[in-house]
Amino acid sequence: MDKNAQSKKGLLERLKEGPVVGDGSMCTTLEKRGYCRAGPWTPEAVLLYPDAVKQLLREYMRAGADVLQTPCFYCNDGKLKNVSQSGESISYSTEAINEAACRIAHEIANEGDDMLVCGGLSPVLSYGRERNMEKARAEFDSQLNVFIKHKVDFVLAEFFGHVEELEICVDVMKRSKMPIACTMRIGPLGDSNGVSVEECAVRMARTGADLIGINCMYDFNTCLKTLKRMQNALDKEGLKTYLMCQPLGWRCPEVENSLIGYADLPETPLALEPRQATRFEAHAFARAAYDLGVRYIGGCCGMEPHHIRAIAQELSSERKKNPAVDDMCPALGFLEHSQVTTIHKKVNKAYWMGQKPGSGRPFSPASSFTQGGAYT
Amino acid sequence: MDKNAQSKKGLLERLKEGPVVGDGSMCTTLEKRGYCRAGPWTPEAVLLYPDAVKQLLREYMRAGADVLQTPCFYCNDGKLKNVSQSGESISYSTEAINEAACRIAHEIANEGDDMLVCGGLSPVLSYGRERNMEKARAEFDSQLNVFIKHKVDFVLAEFFGHVEELEICVDVMKRSKMPIACTMRIGPLGDSNGVSVEECAVRMARTGADLIGINCMYDFNTCLKTLKRMQNALDKEGLKTYLMCQPLGWRCPEVENSLIGYADLPETPLALEPRQATRFEAHAFARAAYDLGVRYIGGCCGMEPHHIRAIAQELSSERKKNPAVDDMCPALGFLEHSQVTTIHKKVNKAYWMGQKPGSGRPFSPASSFTQGGAYT
Amino acid sequence: MDKNAQSKKGLLERLKEGPVVGDGSMCTTLEKRGYCRAGPWTPEAVLLYPDAVKQLLREYMRAGADVLQTPCFYCNDGKLKNVSQSGESISYSTEAINEAACRIAHEIANEGDDMLVCGGLSPVLSYGRERNMEKARAEFDSQLNVFIKHKVDFVLAEFFGHVEELEICVDVMKRSKMPIACTMRIGPLGDSNGVSVEECAVRMARTGADLIGINCMYDFNTCLKTLKRMQNALDKEGLKTYLMCQPLGWRCPEVENSLIGYADLPETPLALEPRQATRFEAHAFARAAYDLGVRYIGGCCGMEPHHIRAIAQELSSERKKNPAVDDMCPALGFLEHSQVTTIHKKVNKAYWMGQKPGSGRPFSPASSFTQGGAYT
Amino acid sequence: MDKNAQSKKGLLERLKEGPVVGDGSMCTTLEKRGYCRAGPWTPEAVLLYPDAVKQLLREYMRAGADVLQTPCFYCNDGKLKNVSQSGESISYSTEAINEAACRIAHEIANEGDDMLVCGGLSPVLSYGRERNMEKARAEFDSQLNVFIKHKVDFVLAEFFGHVEELEICVDVMKRSKMPIACTMRIGPLGDSNGVSVEECAVRMARTGADLIGINCMYDFNTCLKTLKRMQNALDKEGLKTYLMCQPLGWRCPEVENSLIGYADLPETPLALEPRQATRFEAHAFARAAYDLGVRYIGGCCGMEPHHIRAIAQELSSERKKNPAVDDMCPALGFLEHSQVTTIHKKVNKAYWMGQKPGSGRPFSPASSFTQGGAYT
Repeated sequence: MDKNAQSKKGLLERLKEGPVVGDGSMCTTLEKRGYCRAGPWTPEAVLLYPDAVKQLLREYMRAGADVLQTPCFYCNDGKLKNVSQSGESISYSTEAINEAACRIAHEIANEGDDMLVCGGLSPVLSYGRERNMEKARAEFDSQLNVFIKHKVDFVLAEFFGHVEELEICVDVMKRSKMPIACTMRIGPLGDSNGVSVEECAVRMARTGADLIGINCMYDFNTCLKTLKRMQNALDKEGLKTYLMCQPLGWRCPEVENSLIGYADLPETPLALEPRQATRFEAHAFARAAYDLGVRYIGGCCGMEPHHIRAIAQELSSERKKNPAVDDMCPALGFLEHSQVTTIHKKVNKAYWMGQKPGSGRPFSPASSFTQGGAYT
Repeated sequence: MDKNAQSKKGLLERLKEGPVVGDGSMCTTLEKRGYCRAGPWTPEAVLLYPDAVKQLLREYMRAGADVLQTPCFYCNDGKLKNVSQSGESISYSTEAINEAACRIAHEIANEGDDMLVCGGLSPVLSYGRERNMEKARAEFDSQLNVFIKHKVDFVLAEFFGHVEELEICVDVMKRSKMPIACTMRIGPLGDSNGVSVEECAVRMARTGADLIGINCMYDFNTCLKTLKRMQNALDKEGLKTYLMCQPLGWRCPEVENSLIGYADLPETPLALEPRQATRFEAHAFARAAYDLGVRYIGGCCGMEPHHIRAIAQELSSERKKNPAVDDMCPALGFLEHSQVTTIHKKVNKAYWMGQKPGSGRPFSPASSFTQGGAYT
Repeated sequence: MDKNAQSKKGLLERLKEGPVVGDGSMCTTLEKRGYCRAGPWTPEAVLLYPDAVKQLLREYMRAGADVLQTPCFYCNDGKLKNVSQSGESISYSTEAINEAACRIAHEIANEGDDMLVCGGLSPVLSYGRERNMEKARAEFDSQLNVFIKHKVDFVLAEFFGHVEELEICVDVMKRSKMPIACTMRIGPLGDSNGVSVEECAVRMARTGADLIGINCMYDFNTCLKTLKRMQNALDKEGLKTYLMCQPLGWRCPEVENSLIGYADLPETPLALEPRQATRFEAHAFARAAYDLGVRYIGGCCGMEPHHIRAIAQELSSERKKNPAVDDMCPALGFLEHSQVTTIHKKVNKAYWMGQKPGSGRPFSPASSFTQGGAYT
Repeated sequence: MDKNAQSKKGLLERLKEGPVVGDGSMCTTLEKRGYCRAGPWTPEAVLLYPDAVKQLLREYMRAGADVLQTPCFYCNDGKLKNVSQSGESISYSTEAINEAACRIAHEIANEGDDMLVCGGLSPVLSYGRERNMEKARAEFDSQLNVFIKHKVDFVLAEFFGHVEELEICVDVMKRSKMPIACTMRIGPLGDSNGVSVEECAVRMARTGADLIGINCMYDFNTCLKTLKRMQNALDKEGLKTYLMCQPLGWRCPEVENSLIGYADLPETPLALEPRQATRFEAHAFARAAYDLGVRYIGGCCGMEPHHIRAIAQELSSERKKNPAVDDMCPALGFLEHSQVTTIHKKVNKAYWMGQKPGSGRPFSPASSFTQGGAYT
């Protein structure tokens, strides 16, 4: 339920007025905090450790997110089987998890003002492994029921690797009568069936979704290149659908030509720290994405509260509001009050935007070996 | 208060039996989450946002920490004045903050079994700026009162840059009749008055403290070099005091010869991500520190729950227990249940210990420019 | 003149039999040795310091080159004007320089057995600055006369940035009745008039040249990507022309998307050392190029005698001969005779092919800033 | 013989007047050109390929060297045995090689004006392997005879790893009545018998040598640190001997704590290219060495003609002369005459001194793994 369902503006009105800020990573951040299983990446924490999940959503809200996604990313019965195999005596149903995720998202949204709750659907193994369209349709349909029942503000189909599967999902979602967003996890090579970035963009728009784009798997720069191509393809067809982007929080230019993006890195998933974006790299990304015409900007794996904060702070004038977190963490902190006097000169955004941060690892390369390293 | 004060073993008994694991960073992690002011780094969050602080302590406990420090790091009236200047209408007293910190630490410790609570004292401006020994003594004395009143399990004097000031603090702490630990924030150059590492070690031991060592300012490798020299100096004098270490969670070899360590990095404090240690670098550190004879191993700035977890997991056989967090996050996660089949081969600690993680930043150097760059 | 003009096999016979090895850089190597002007890069050394030029050609011959180019790279009256401005009282004519270059190339070729001499033509300012086709044709014609008079074994039109200009040059060259080779200095973006790599390949082949390809401006990996696209384009059109490649000897992946390649690097031309290829990177390049179907493999700027040696040694079985230099410098040297015993284990090609050589510069990035750095 | 033996100034007069510039690498540069065996590194090229050796000496002379060393570096009967094992039917005597080296050095010196010829002695296996002092003395004595016979201008004992052996060599050299220079191949750890840098400096000075210092094995920065310590030790003892330095031309900070310096690098000796100093790094080194008080500055392995040129050009005002090579290669070339207009702005020494050159290898680390990598 939503305390101010009546009063508040919906997603579409907000997109008309200016950029909307999404939230950040759920599973990878909960994993570092001790509440998610690396490998299955399933969100049973919503049942086992709800307070930890609530605290993370609260941090995204304070950071300036306009939207909280139901914390049930990439959750479906096929994947949940993995969990029961991974040391748990009991196993969880998609429905039980999605129910809990909806309750948590609404509870935290109600702590704030004017928050939107987004119900998230994602790919299913009945398409991925069986190419069974009817079974896929049925799975999406049952996922959708929970979000309708819990009156989320809009629905998002995300992390699709095949535009064909996404088309089925969006078609199912129309029954909800809610605004519809959808994103694919694609990079420059296009989708896993060999459909080009340009064709994916056009087909996504033609589903009738209100908001389309990409999430996960690639870093800021690679996503920006892909979005530029999507925008050009839409313009060519005279399509006006809004663009959204929820990229990785890790730098990984070397996997731009892999179909599975950062999943190809040797460091994935347990040694990605040196690749994590700085808040200022997130500022630069938010600005570049906005200038490209992207109107919904959030984060996927590796994007933590201080990154979402950077996006909200970068776009505060376009959004005509400052995030709540500014009471403790304005964009440059309170560096003028440091006891280390040499830090005072750093109260200067240009200083930070110009930084080329070192890794502190003279024995590590800038890039890792991947198949992208051919001839190298 | 402590539910099982009677039953549980104290610090000294535990040190006799095996390695003790400390907790991790407070201020820098809360800053990323949106609850601490970069610059002053003062812990007023214990009053303003207690739930966020409790959640972080809970994560360290789950990660395997045996000890929770009262979350009032480097808090004193001098520094708190900065806060009142930094946008807050009201200001906070050291006493009010330390009181709240003690309540929070006890509350979370009581959620667990067999946790120790540690009361933390740190340097005061009356020494640092005025070299006023009597005033410093009085400040330490009033800080100590709160910890005595709240019956912490032991006291720690940490982050001292001058062994002379530390000697005063330890002398004051004796009144508590509790076990005493103390650490300095020194690197290879020794203390800020030019006292060598070796002399610092010997003088710290001769204060009668039960546990001595270093915290903050330098990275794993630099701390290990310094600890080796401290150990040698103690052996030479036939001193048997236990060693402890709470290092940075960031790699920064290039500032090993700076008196203020990572405070000299251009990226400090807002762009340190690429330097953050991986969990496996924390495994390697824990093993090397243990092999060196260090018996209390925790973390300072930049050491997050998954790093403390790595320390506890690395030393689980020596400690004859596994951290609670193993239910969700054993050392290698549940990678065998990943949908990405190429990740299955990574269920292998040797694979991870051998990784040289890339920064994903071909335009960034391994090291940053510092005064260490002479002739380069 | 050529002592064994009658007996020896010509270029086309050799290409039928196996890979032909070209020579390496002239101007950039002479510059390091003290005999060429950085900036104009004109070869007046053939008149001022002939012994230094002869010695370098001799080194390429010993290294295993089958061909010596007349050392008059990119020499034309327009460029020579620069020299007279650059501190020289007298100035030089293209004709005088080309005459001397022919004499030098023949003299050294005659020291060896079975060497081919190649006369090199390159772009002219009358096209580059004036787009004056007739004037360009006349310049090429007069350049060609010298090579006909001196009876070189074949002619090469190289370093063309515009396929349109190359077509004019090749058309002129036909008068010589000699085998004709031609190369462009293009990368993935194609030529400077926006003609694609694929179209350039097809148009070069359709000029009737016997050998076509690329030289200079891009590194091993970028050239290999471009050559692959040229090969595919030729296959598509059923064209069978042989491919050749004379790449840079410096690594510069970051300028792959610049129209002027390494000329865009901040380090160009005086601080390129850290980018210089190792001999084993040259081995890997030679193998990859051969596997791709390239049949004439040499080097341009930055490719020194030990790089050409590596190409000849890598392909010695395909060429059924070993380079003369093997008496002093076989592929792995005589490392088994080192006094440093740890070096004995390095008598092992796999060891060297697996090396990732360090730059010894922790304060330098892997890549430099260029316009390719957008969003980074 | 020497055309102007009478007229010209000797080494000691020149040191009084200002810095003296030495020549550069012989064996490693000849190896790249195809005339030296990697492994034994013996200079039989003086007999087999004298023209190639003469050309290299000529380049150093043009580059601004005041001194040509006889090209017989580290040549002794023990090492020459290696050659006969390495594929040569005949073998060479130290005497035959040193005779040829003297003739070559005099011949090229006579092409110039006012050049000095230096006869070089180096360690012998009779000390290194047998610690046989008398046999060592006899070997040095016979080496010296050749240099006396050929009337070199001064003698240099170089590349000594043990000060004890150097003391024997210098004692023998006194018989020549020539100025005596001596250098050790030591780094911060001191000599191979554990004698400290400071003690080595004092003992070298007390032999009565006119010029002492270090050569080879360590890079610019490491040599500068060592020289500073030597200078301080001499000052402390009131010793006034001139200092000299002939460092490596490769960057290798990571082996500063190895007793054998760059011989410990995985890339040694065949993949060192990315470590090669730029000419501007050589400018910075020459300036720093001069400011430190070093009065004889040349190069060892990896220092090529353009590096020696940079040293001579950096110190031209102190030396009141410009190198001959300035006709073709002044310090900034003739970049204002480049056809690439963006290069014109680079006619600016500050631009080059500020460069941090990239390696163009995102998959390579800044540093290589060595024993220095402990804990890393």
